[in-house]
Amino acid sequence: MSYVAPLKEMLFALTDLAGIDQLAALPGYEDATANTARAVLEEAARLHEDVLAPLNVDGDRSPSTWKDGVVTATAGFKDAFRQFSEGGWQGLQHPSEYGGQDLPKLLSTPCIEMLNAANLSLGLCPLLTDGAIEALLTAGSEELKQRYVPKMISGEWTGTMNLTEPQAGSDLSLVRTRAEPQGDGSYRIFGTKIFITWGEHDMTENIVHLVLARTPAAPEGVKGISLFVVPKFLVNKDGSLGERNDAHCVSIEHKLGIKASPTAVLQFGDHGGAIGQLVGEENRGLEYMFVMMNAARFAVGVQGVAISDRAYQQAVAYAKERVQSRPVDGSAKQPVAIIQHPDVRRMLSTMRALTEGARALAYVSASHCDLAHRHPDGATRANHQAIYEYLVPIVKGWSTEMSLEVTSLGVQVHGGMGFIEETGAAQYYRDARILPIYEGTTAIQANDLVGRKTMRDNGEVAGMLLAQIDAALVAVQAHPSYGSSAAFQAMHRHLSAGREALYSAVRFVVENAKSDPNAACAGSVCYLMLAGIVLAGWQLARSLVLAADKRDEDPAFHDAKIATAHSYATQVLPRAIALEAAVRGARDGEGALALREDQF
Amino acid sequence: MSYVAPLKEMLFALTDLAGIDQLAALPGYEDATANTARAVLEEAARLHEDVLAPLNVDGDRSPSTWKDGVVTATAGFKDAFRQFSEGGWQGLQHPSEYGGQDLPKLLSTPCIEMLNAANLSLGLCPLLTDGAIEALLTAGSEELKQRYVPKMISGEWTGTMNLTEPQAGSDLSLVRTRAEPQGDGSYRIFGTKIFITWGEHDMTENIVHLVLARTPAAPEGVKGISLFVVPKFLVNKDGSLGERNDAHCVSIEHKLGIKASPTAVLQFGDHGGAIGQLVGEENRGLEYMFVMMNAARFAVGVQGVAISDRAYQQAVAYAKERVQSRPVDGSAKQPVAIIQHPDVRRMLSTMRALTEGARALAYVSASHCDLAHRHPDGATRANHQAIYEYLVPIVKGWSTEMSLEVTSLGVQVHGGMGFIEETGAAQYYRDARILPIYEGTTAIQANDLVGRKTMRDNGEVAGMLLAQIDAALVAVQAHPSYGSSAAFQAMHRHLSAGREALYSAVRFVVENAKSDPNAACAGSVCYLMLAGIVLAGWQLARSLVLAADKRDEDPAFHDAKIATAHSYATQVLPRAIALEAAVRGARDGEGALALREDQF
Repeated sequence: MSYVAPLKEMLFALTDLAGIDQLAALPGYEDATANTARAVLEEAARLHEDVLAPLNVDGDRSPSTWKDGVVTATAGFKDAFRQFSEGGWQGLQHPSEYGGQDLPKLLSTPCIEMLNAANLSLGLCPLLTDGAIEALLTAGSEELKQRYVPKMISGEWTGTMNLTEPQAGSDLSLVRTRAEPQGDGSYRIFGTKIFITWGEHDMTENIVHLVLARTPAAPEGVKGISLFVVPKFLVNKDGSLGERNDAHCVSIEHKLGIKASPTAVLQFGDHGGAIGQLVGEENRGLEYMFVMMNAARFAVGVQGVAISDRAYQQAVAYAKERVQSRPVDGSAKQPVAIIQHPDVRRMLSTMRALTEGARALAYVSASHCDLAHRHPDGATRANHQAIYEYLVPIVKGWSTEMSLEVTSLGVQVHGGMGFIEETGAAQYYRDARILPIYEGTTAIQANDLVGRKTMRDNGEVAGMLLAQIDAALVAVQAHPSYGSSAAFQAMHRHLSAGREALYSAVRFVVENAKSDPNAACAGSVCYLMLAGIVLAGWQLARSLVLAADKRDEDPAFHDAKIATAHSYATQVLPRAIALEAAVRGARDGEGALALREDQF
Repeated sequence: MSYVAPLKEMLFALTDLAGIDQLAALPGYEDATANTARAVLEEAARLHEDVLAPLNVDGDRSPSTWKDGVVTATAGFKDAFRQFSEGGWQGLQHPSEYGGQDLPKLLSTPCIEMLNAANLSLGLCPLLTDGAIEALLTAGSEELKQRYVPKMISGEWTGTMNLTEPQAGSDLSLVRTRAEPQGDGSYRIFGTKIFITWGEHDMTENIVHLVLARTPAAPEGVKGISLFVVPKFLVNKDGSLGERNDAHCVSIEHKLGIKASPTAVLQFGDHGGAIGQLVGEENRGLEYMFVMMNAARFAVGVQGVAISDRAYQQAVAYAKERVQSRPVDGSAKQPVAIIQHPDVRRMLSTMRALTEGARALAYVSASHCDLAHRHPDGATRANHQAIYEYLVPIVKGWSTEMSLEVTSLGVQVHGGMGFIEETGAAQYYRDARILPIYEGTTAIQANDLVGRKTMRDNGEVAGMLLAQIDAALVAVQAHPSYGSSAAFQAMHRHLSAGREALYSAVRFVVENAKSDPNAACAGSVCYLMLAGIVLAGWQLARSLVLAADKRDEDPAFHDAKIATAHSYATQVLPRAIALEAAVRGARDGEGALALREDQF
């Protein structure tokens, strides 16, 4: 099953919802117009559709292999990654002084979506490299930046993030990897890291590992973690490759999905110590890692959108082709394509509405990130930064949880064929399952949302977003279509209820996070899901109004937008009320906390 | 990870909720007392825990294999099936005159749960054999019964159901397999059947295929389908095995899950015709097939309970052992077992509450089936039969959809380890995915619920169940605990709202199923899910009252029951409202139907 980049959908979200033209007014983004965006996306689509997408199934059937420490990527991946790099796609959002294109995150986001829709396993390699580049740019010395970043942007080298250890998954305070200073400014690293995505492979001549480790005198816990750059091959002063470093892949995991992406166990220092350089200052590693994690978390959210769209495309194609059963309304005497059956349409509508809502939310978030970086006014920057930071855990958590539902519906649309691996729907279902886990589980995102993003400012940023939802509700109700359009009325009714539910959940969190932290945390994932549903619903409400206003420019396209918003209103938004009840259900050890540890 | 049959939970559901002692008052079920049940379940637990459960992971890693038409089951399966058969477990609910034990369905249900929790892939073989036995008992001549049923009950032979063809999945009107009469009372069968579970294997000396096919003069569509028994080896008059029949396995599928269960493509008649005998009358095949399908559908619902319980057990064990992060309430300075973290408790509570609710609903349904068969009063029988028939699509549809959520949460509890196949959680996630598909997808169940079970009687049976929910609500509110118990209050509040939502959905279906069948069908799955959530909630409300009343007999057990009901009330029941909105969302081509076929 091929992948077709949904360019019109992407451009609508990019232009009409996320407002790319306002970014073009910012210093340094002068070229980032809607026209540039269209050209970039069309170019990206060609590469991802033609080169990366067809390899997706190969990667599943013939995963990366490990032998004697050497990992060989699926046949074709090396060449595809070369084409990706040569096209300049790795450097899209990175600074031009290191070889990047300096484009806004808003423009790189649809490209990341395409990459991951085409090939989630392959897409992880650039995704992690992006994170490593960001960390080096944030905290590295100019020497380190010059040594590593240009080669990573050019795709000659790739990057990895080494956080997890066997005893330290989500809890980095337990990190034990040691870094011993050598007196010459370098360190020797000793330890084991697990779950290292693309931690070893043969696609490039070098791999740049960013590694969390402790120096000898470091304090305990997360305040004693430093960040090191540990290349697979040492890099000489002239930039040429030197000796093989003492960082070796001892195995790769046998996983449920994303099988082409090698998940490595890396052993540092078994043969004398892996040579590493400190990035930034000692003991500030976690802070730097958060920079790359925030970028990676956002990108993983986009992976959720991406795999959902791919699953949706395949399900639609199958539903249009598969003939089975007569229509329930008696409109034909012969079996019809299953897309005509109401429940199949319900499933496809739900898949589509969720995917579009999540895409819109991600793209709008990206534009806040761009405004936070480049707006000339400091207070405006801070405002956009706060909104972006509120949205990141939601984009990550909700879009990925949503992708479980969408890929599962994708299997269901196929009936029995969906369970057969050759069909391909099952691969999306398996691949998606990692998304709510890696780069911080949904619970980790939800804790972040509750603690740093809601409690700390007493719900102020959440309040700003609620005010924007109110504005959208006014626009829906004041629209000339309102009186005669079931879509407008349904959206107004269900988004209003959702808005109240979100407000109530925010108040609950603000009022209880300190006095009853267990209750706030027990409700945190439901709060995150509720926020995702309502905020994506807000975007689809905006989309509804815009589509009605611009309908005559392209009636078919905009009518479908209106119908999708309608579907979202009745099929998805009502869940907000149920989630709000669940958020409030755990106070005083009730509901979700009613069972004590020993009662399980 | 080992499996431990939850005997106390099962006996509570069997005795307190489903009332096994009232069955012992029925003719023929005199032995079916709570004490018998306990003895049977303890015996079953030993076999399933010790013999079948350890093979579950083997079956996933070393699936059944096909070579030159011969299918070899995973090592150990043949011996395990022999022990299962020798223990008499295949015959539990079948008539003693053919070698069965004549026990009520209520008693066989927990045994089926154990079998499938222990080993879903292996469990499918007896499940399909049960269906074949039922069909033969219902429609077969005495000669056919005597020839086949005793050997199937003894486990010497197994049975299969051959419905699906490449062009005929859910839509049996498209069946093309031909049956040509030979003049001697036998037929020659020609055609291809796909998705035949345990359609070929080496565990027994013979396999009894029940095959849907058309005789030469049969009318078109489903009214021209007849049922044939087509053994792998012909059976001589004396019961000994004769020639190999012309029914051959040409391949088995490569599937997402239940890999040890061979899913066969069977070719009938490529070498002159497969010899078959007509079962019952010509052209009544679909009716007979529904007998076995109804039995199988109920059993698949129990599979949903089973795999949920197994996933729950594994997740609890991991959460108690895995140490990570300090508690959010500051109650410890060191990392603690993750079961102490609120979100992990939320996930485990949800898994547990859903599993218990679905178990209770299945067991109560089984007792209605028994009462429908054995109650001396005809009107009472008819009443119980109607309730059972209403519940079957819900037990099948809801329990299996629920198992997707539970097994997914099971992966999530494990974090990154959940995505690694060696952990085992991923197997349940993959295995469960077939449950809402086979034996009729959830949409097929929902159509049945809407059409035959709700519209046809104008919601009368649904009304009887609503009245029982009302009685339970009265019991909750009138209970001495009500004033002081948050669990009682939460249950009353959320079950009341759920009851209203279910009532509203039933009215919507009754009022619209004829005038707007597309709307009724677009909302049908949401109606089914709503019914499942509310009816299981009703059982947990009953469980809450019973547990409070009997608390002193076993405080630890009953307190956990109360807490589980509390969790269900706040975490699960509120979804009913969202589902009700979705049910009503598709009227006049709105909501779920807003997107037309050409707009996807």
